[in-house]
Amino acid sequence: MARNTQVPADHDAPPITRILAEYVAKHPSRGWNDAVDHEAHRTFLNWLGCAVGAAKHEAADAALAAVNELQPAPQATVAGRSERVDMASAALVNGITSHTFDFDDTHLKTIIHPAGPVASALLALAEHKGMGGRDVVDALVLGIDVACRLGNLVYPEHYDRGWHITGTTGMLGAAAGCARLLKLDADRTQMALGIAASQPVGLREQFGTMTKPFHPGGAARAGLMSALLAAKGFTASPRALEAPRGWAQVVSTKTAWNEATDELGQRFEISFNSYKPFACGIVIHPSIDAAAQLRAQGVRPEQVERIELRVHSLVLELTGKKEPADGMQGKFSVYHGVAAGLMFGRAGEDEYHDDIVTRADMVALRRKVVATVDDSIDEASADVTAVLTDGRKVHVFVEHTIGSLQNPMTDAMLEGKFTQLAEPVIGAAKTKQLIQACWGLGKAKDLRALTALARP
Amino acid sequence: MARNTQVPADHDAPPITRILAEYVAKHPSRGWNDAVDHEAHRTFLNWLGCAVGAAKHEAADAALAAVNELQPAPQATVAGRSERVDMASAALVNGITSHTFDFDDTHLKTIIHPAGPVASALLALAEHKGMGGRDVVDALVLGIDVACRLGNLVYPEHYDRGWHITGTTGMLGAAAGCARLLKLDADRTQMALGIAASQPVGLREQFGTMTKPFHPGGAARAGLMSALLAAKGFTASPRALEAPRGWAQVVSTKTAWNEATDELGQRFEISFNSYKPFACGIVIHPSIDAAAQLRAQGVRPEQVERIELRVHSLVLELTGKKEPADGMQGKFSVYHGVAAGLMFGRAGEDEYHDDIVTRADMVALRRKVVATVDDSIDEASADVTAVLTDGRKVHVFVEHTIGSLQNPMTDAMLEGKFTQLAEPVIGAAKTKQLIQACWGLGKAKDLRALTALARP
Repeated sequence: MARNTQVPADHDAPPITRILAEYVAKHPSRGWNDAVDHEAHRTFLNWLGCAVGAAKHEAADAALAAVNELQPAPQATVAGRSERVDMASAALVNGITSHTFDFDDTHLKTIIHPAGPVASALLALAEHKGMGGRDVVDALVLGIDVACRLGNLVYPEHYDRGWHITGTTGMLGAAAGCARLLKLDADRTQMALGIAASQPVGLREQFGTMTKPFHPGGAARAGLMSALLAAKGFTASPRALEAPRGWAQVVSTKTAWNEATDELGQRFEISFNSYKPFACGIVIHPSIDAAAQLRAQGVRPEQVERIELRVHSLVLELTGKKEPADGMQGKFSVYHGVAAGLMFGRAGEDEYHDDIVTRADMVALRRKVVATVDDSIDEASADVTAVLTDGRKVHVFVEHTIGSLQNPMTDAMLEGKFTQLAEPVIGAAKTKQLIQACWGLGKAKDLRALTALARP
Repeated sequence: MARNTQVPADHDAPPITRILAEYVAKHPSRGWNDAVDHEAHRTFLNWLGCAVGAAKHEAADAALAAVNELQPAPQATVAGRSERVDMASAALVNGITSHTFDFDDTHLKTIIHPAGPVASALLALAEHKGMGGRDVVDALVLGIDVACRLGNLVYPEHYDRGWHITGTTGMLGAAAGCARLLKLDADRTQMALGIAASQPVGLREQFGTMTKPFHPGGAARAGLMSALLAAKGFTASPRALEAPRGWAQVVSTKTAWNEATDELGQRFEISFNSYKPFACGIVIHPSIDAAAQLRAQGVRPEQVERIELRVHSLVLELTGKKEPADGMQGKFSVYHGVAAGLMFGRAGEDEYHDDIVTRADMVALRRKVVATVDDSIDEASADVTAVLTDGRKVHVFVEHTIGSLQNPMTDAMLEGKFTQLAEPVIGAAKTKQLIQACWGLGKAKDLRALTALARP
């Protein structure tokens, strides 16, 4: 059911975040009259009495039992680090790091990055509890199914309003997955979903800051804690998702309920998951893919007179930066992307380091790229012709870019991507073993062998 | 700026919370084809590579530094319990317990319960860090000011949409207060507010379940962690509150920006805080107050032939339950409230125990209450006449009920309420000392003396 509530954005709001921050940081101590100061003491006294008074309530017992599960720490691995922390914090940090390079997976129907919230919660819980890999894979499929189905239910209106959908559905996927891993019954699982429903994490305004990857991390943590609370008897509304004042109707005006239930248990949303081959926005991917194909056909940078690139107008609108000054700007330059594809045959995080983006031969190569708008070409396609110094032309048309659902990355490509990411952090030997441990996940008796490999 | 987006509620949604819970709990292990199972392994491999790859990023450093502040636990007191836990968990649990009886404070302009999120975060942080009371009082005033000003900015549209405003502004108040307590500069404080802005906690659908008091607890925890993250260099949008896709415009269509800034540093929203004298919905308070005044004037239950109660129609609409069967139902019975006021002169949590609500003399007394609707009487008032067996009539009209801004609870009444709540949990001696410690908060050198008194 779609209900129209397009609200015009207010771009002229005063800088209240800054104003309040200055106020909080700089207002003098006791910079008010005695009545205000006394009211603060009354507020504190009244608050403390209420807290002490309810200390034996069953809600307090359940909440304490859940947070006591976080002690004694350390409990779980932070992937790629030697530190181990409590499992909720591990879920948070792994959720953050997995999305930091914007290089993770994408459920293309909703642009949810589902593994960040779900896998981060599951791995931390499974490591601490010594659970087996089969249970983790089951929980991963079901948790991602819940997050993405609920995403389908509210997308795109929810995203358009300004929510970062990865963290505002992810806590539900993480709660579902952790409930499954804890083998909660349907009643307790329902409570876990309910507790999680109150905790959406993520605003699109945060894009470009560390709080963007915080969203899947925060969602992982919230979902894990929701399942622990439900396991200890904490209660929530049994209709927390669908009620008039429940999650879906509060965060969205589109509520396509059938998306939660159609073909449930037969169609699995993880089947529509995709993986980024290149560490930049998806709109540049077809151009990089085409350039890498030119390289695979033997074209070398020094042979190139010019590269003619024909793409949809959106590509230049979003990523038309001709002279990127650093790695971050490079991610918004289709010119750099084409140069990287031709120079290296890839565009991972390494190819967006500052020193690559500013390297003289890369600057020279990207200046040879001539981009033309052609809206008869799909956004997901690219048409590239290399005009060589000897007059020859080599043409590549990419209809479905590598990493799309029509043309998915092969397992070998995923291994290559993994290696490029992991080797600098944990070394070549552990990287190889960790890849094998991932492929054998469903048969692993205890996740701790895998997490040990993820530490340097 | 008010922008109209009233969306009709959908009351006919299918029970998807239940359907998904059954699915997650009961779908068989590996109940899908090999392609789905393989996709799960690809998803896991790709996710882990991304997490390992970003493990040395500055976002990972900042996040780990913040969560490492939670170790080693125990760090902070759970009020009224012997357990101590990490400070983030203490903030969570104290936020839960302080709102469990629905007996805490109320900023009447917005119906925010401000101390739950703000004080819970501050006390945990101050105890762990060994901070002094003056800093805590300053942070409490400023944190509550931020939460309630932002509440004014979006209320009532935000609340009407279905958000539980205590937890959806509270994380900002807690972040502000903790930033102040940590003496962060304006830049870092701005980041703390920004990180918190992505984490609203609370749906009104949860009312009547443990997840309602979870909201201030979750907000306390989120605000505390946001300040710790900001202190370690974690970044967020500097316009996270006001930008088109920032907090205010995403969670509300009313955005009265001036509420954030008018008389900033001169008017303090804590001045408009109020405290509940009775452990039930505020709409019953004038009637209980009137009955307690009858008792103070010498009227005894055994003298009463009948009690004539005249109230606004809303009172009976919300709390017209004539024969409550237990304590929970008693909270929705103005008849029980009047009986408690006359019998005990008070209606704290004790007077809503099941055995009081079903006690024979209480049942007999409440059956003598005859309620009449009179919409010329304000919702915040009550007109009560006791008709005695000897024919005399004793009349009380309450215009401004006790606990209202016009007729606030005295300090002595607050002490009485505190004692009734705390004595059964920590005993009479500690209760007295703890009250004195609260009044002396602003002069306390180290909060740990106070928190020690809050443990049984």
